[in-house]
Amino acid sequence: MASDDAAQARVTQRICDTIKTRIASGLLGPGDKLPSTRALAAEWGISRTTVTAAYEQLIAEGYVETRQGARAQVARGLGPSSPQPTRSASTTMTGQLSAFGRRLAEFPLPSVASAPSLVADFRYGDLSAADFPTLAWRKAVTGVILRRQPRLRYDDPCGSLRLRTALQGYLWRARGLRCEPEQVIVVNGSQQGLDLCARLLLDPEDRAVMENPGYTLARQVFLAAGAQVAPVTVDGEGMRTDSLPDASLAYVTPSHQFPLGGVLSAGRRRELLAWARRTGAHVIEDDYDSEYRFDIAPIPPLQALDGAGRVIYLGTVSKTLSPTLRLGYLVVPKALSEPFAKAKRLADRHAPGLEQEALAELIESGAYERHVRRVRRRNAERRMALLAALSATLGDAVTVVGVEAGLHVVVWLNSVPRHQEENLTVRAHAAGLGVYPVTPLYAPGSAADRPDAAGLVVGYASLDARSIIRGVQILAEVMDTVRRRGEVGR
Amino acid sequence: MASDDAAQARVTQRICDTIKTRIASGLLGPGDKLPSTRALAAEWGISRTTVTAAYEQLIAEGYVETRQGARAQVARGLGPSSPQPTRSASTTMTGQLSAFGRRLAEFPLPSVASAPSLVADFRYGDLSAADFPTLAWRKAVTGVILRRQPRLRYDDPCGSLRLRTALQGYLWRARGLRCEPEQVIVVNGSQQGLDLCARLLLDPEDRAVMENPGYTLARQVFLAAGAQVAPVTVDGEGMRTDSLPDASLAYVTPSHQFPLGGVLSAGRRRELLAWARRTGAHVIEDDYDSEYRFDIAPIPPLQALDGAGRVIYLGTVSKTLSPTLRLGYLVVPKALSEPFAKAKRLADRHAPGLEQEALAELIESGAYERHVRRVRRRNAERRMALLAALSATLGDAVTVVGVEAGLHVVVWLNSVPRHQEENLTVRAHAAGLGVYPVTPLYAPGSAADRPDAAGLVVGYASLDARSIIRGVQILAEVMDTVRRRGEVGR
Repeated sequence: MASDDAAQARVTQRICDTIKTRIASGLLGPGDKLPSTRALAAEWGISRTTVTAAYEQLIAEGYVETRQGARAQVARGLGPSSPQPTRSASTTMTGQLSAFGRRLAEFPLPSVASAPSLVADFRYGDLSAADFPTLAWRKAVTGVILRRQPRLRYDDPCGSLRLRTALQGYLWRARGLRCEPEQVIVVNGSQQGLDLCARLLLDPEDRAVMENPGYTLARQVFLAAGAQVAPVTVDGEGMRTDSLPDASLAYVTPSHQFPLGGVLSAGRRRELLAWARRTGAHVIEDDYDSEYRFDIAPIPPLQALDGAGRVIYLGTVSKTLSPTLRLGYLVVPKALSEPFAKAKRLADRHAPGLEQEALAELIESGAYERHVRRVRRRNAERRMALLAALSATLGDAVTVVGVEAGLHVVVWLNSVPRHQEENLTVRAHAAGLGVYPVTPLYAPGSAADRPDAAGLVVGYASLDARSIIRGVQILAEVMDTVRRRGEVGR
Repeated sequence: MASDDAAQARVTQRICDTIKTRIASGLLGPGDKLPSTRALAAEWGISRTTVTAAYEQLIAEGYVETRQGARAQVARGLGPSSPQPTRSASTTMTGQLSAFGRRLAEFPLPSVASAPSLVADFRYGDLSAADFPTLAWRKAVTGVILRRQPRLRYDDPCGSLRLRTALQGYLWRARGLRCEPEQVIVVNGSQQGLDLCARLLLDPEDRAVMENPGYTLARQVFLAAGAQVAPVTVDGEGMRTDSLPDASLAYVTPSHQFPLGGVLSAGRRRELLAWARRTGAHVIEDDYDSEYRFDIAPIPPLQALDGAGRVIYLGTVSKTLSPTLRLGYLVVPKALSEPFAKAKRLADRHAPGLEQEALAELIESGAYERHVRRVRRRNAERRMALLAALSATLGDAVTVVGVEAGLHVVVWLNSVPRHQEENLTVRAHAAGLGVYPVTPLYAPGSAADRPDAAGLVVGYASLDARSIIRGVQILAEVMDTVRRRGEVGR
């Protein structure tokens, strides 16, 4: 826009604002005639063209009406604005939320203020940016951007066929999982997969079975859907399946129980599937970190044993590439493909095209699996460093579980009683150590099922060996302080 | 992995599969001892190490148990598999869907099979890939990928603070909309914004007011939430607001009514806001294409008039950059920031990081607004070409509405009766012309509110002038055929 045009536009806008203010204040009422364009142009010392443009704008916005040959007038039905409402209107707003909205109220929203810089932060879910395949991803993304198609249009709600085909191959090679591309639904991370399952399979008052302890956001999704969550005890072989209650849904992490790390045994897998067939329940198999097994080959998924179309398999690249990409995938029984496609379409049309194509390219070229092998080695080293440091520094003072797989372990602090868990966590943060208590992962009121010691979920995938070792030293110091103060307090 | 290792892994897998098959078929029962590693190694002609690896795998998967000094045995509790179920189990599955899932069943899932190559496809929502700012986007994306942060972690569910701040500035400059960054929620396209609104604000049996005709996917979202949709007649000034029923929610497109193109008049804006204050309803203002106005300056949003925290503003880059990016934004009243943040977190944690940062970069550098001006000019040219072709080729045979703004018009075919709309659409596709009937945008059973002629929603943003002109010619031919056959049929 030339600068003359810009200046005219500003004047036009000022005329519009002035007239709107006069209408709002009641100085100009409905049906009142506006000044003629000639008169207003003279009054403001501007051209009639500018005034005409302003009036046309006001007509388009409905403030002003005009008839052939007559002067422009304030639109009938337009009066002065009612007084501005007080703020009390908005404070009562949560009372107008849906039942879903009201159920969310009890869930804490984690602070996103940037954390104080910690010496070591064992937050589970974080990855080291140094592990991200920057060059390969950049190359894939650039290729996708430059490879223009003639038109940009909404894609299949289930995701790009190219990515779904690539995932089909990957899941067969890496997990022994057989499926057709139409069973694959690309989602924005496993969280969306869980949410879609809850929406499609749970009505208010339905029951969902979950491991206890288990994944907090899964529990929240089920509770937000209005379901009752039935917690089921977990031991070294995963969730106990000998007395599952009737339910619409079970959520399990069979390859690596979150957070305790057990592998669901073959007997229990069978029992779980038999229960699902008998009761008509669906089973969500969250295979969130199966890429990381350190001493033995990956365990075939529950989905591969399911002949009855009860299992919904859920995978993600949040543990192999980045949690910020927001890419995951469901493998659903064929009978559920269409409902999931429709739900995904209403939820957000489809997953972003760029990331989908880039991931497909990485999988097709073999770069993804090479990358997985590389980060598996790096995380094996981190795990070794962590286990060695815990053993050397803390010895029998801790019991470490879930070490065979994944990107975290649970550390029970044998010398620190359970009621000191929060105190220890706070003191650790003050000392520069990010540690995260295990208690929030237990269903409320299920305290009897767990060790009497404080426990921590310790993620190590974002740290180098040096920080890990330093972190364990700080942990030992903090444990010592808490223990001594505890003794004094008796 | 060395090829020796790979070969060993294959043999290990074969041993595992064989033993699992024996267990599944009942040849090996619970408690049965496996062959000794020595015996099996001899039998298969392989090393004991390989057999041991296979047994360890079976132990990890729970098929096999072992005790100190004793031979490995089949896990107790493991028996032969129950027979494979028949397919009938899955065909009854939709009966197990939630009420939400069952409500989806009636919505059609558009075919995603690649359309036959058409001479001209007037599908609304498609953009020309030639308009995408490929180089600027590539530069922004590459910059984001290379600018590593030390760790990759989940972001704020409301979106990147940088993008929200950039959007705050953009919305003020481009739309006169004032908000704080904490009122901005970045979503995966406006569809997710609609879905979050429905989930947070609608309970089953609640009422949602919608323009009639109106946006199909909004109607489906409200129906899927279990709400009653109350259609309200639209005329040249947008939705009629003189007799709105009580409702929890109103969905409107005030800048450019979809699909008919009217601008909600100032009086109606006031009336709508007064209704919302009086009834406690929220108003979703879908500002889906306000970047495209051709003769006058953009009209300030409803949100700017709202002093009572009733308006939820919804924007998208699907019409300026690409529908495949899946980026949009809500501006919510402050009292709703927290519920929306929690709902977005449960829905999918947050929008993808890469696109958010790239868009922030484009807005901050001014490249986004330069791009918007450029595509506005290009689409103005397309619109001119379309209007000129319609006028020259069809003249009084058509009435074109909604020409002042947006990326589509509605064309009423005066010579073709309404009941021939589908017939005409099918014939047009057969002749290489993609046209889309207006009838599906009307609420079922609201036929009296519309012209008696067939109508088409004609999007032109993906086409060059030549295709537009050719498309109008084909339309004229098809109209002629339909009209003549109609006369013959009398």
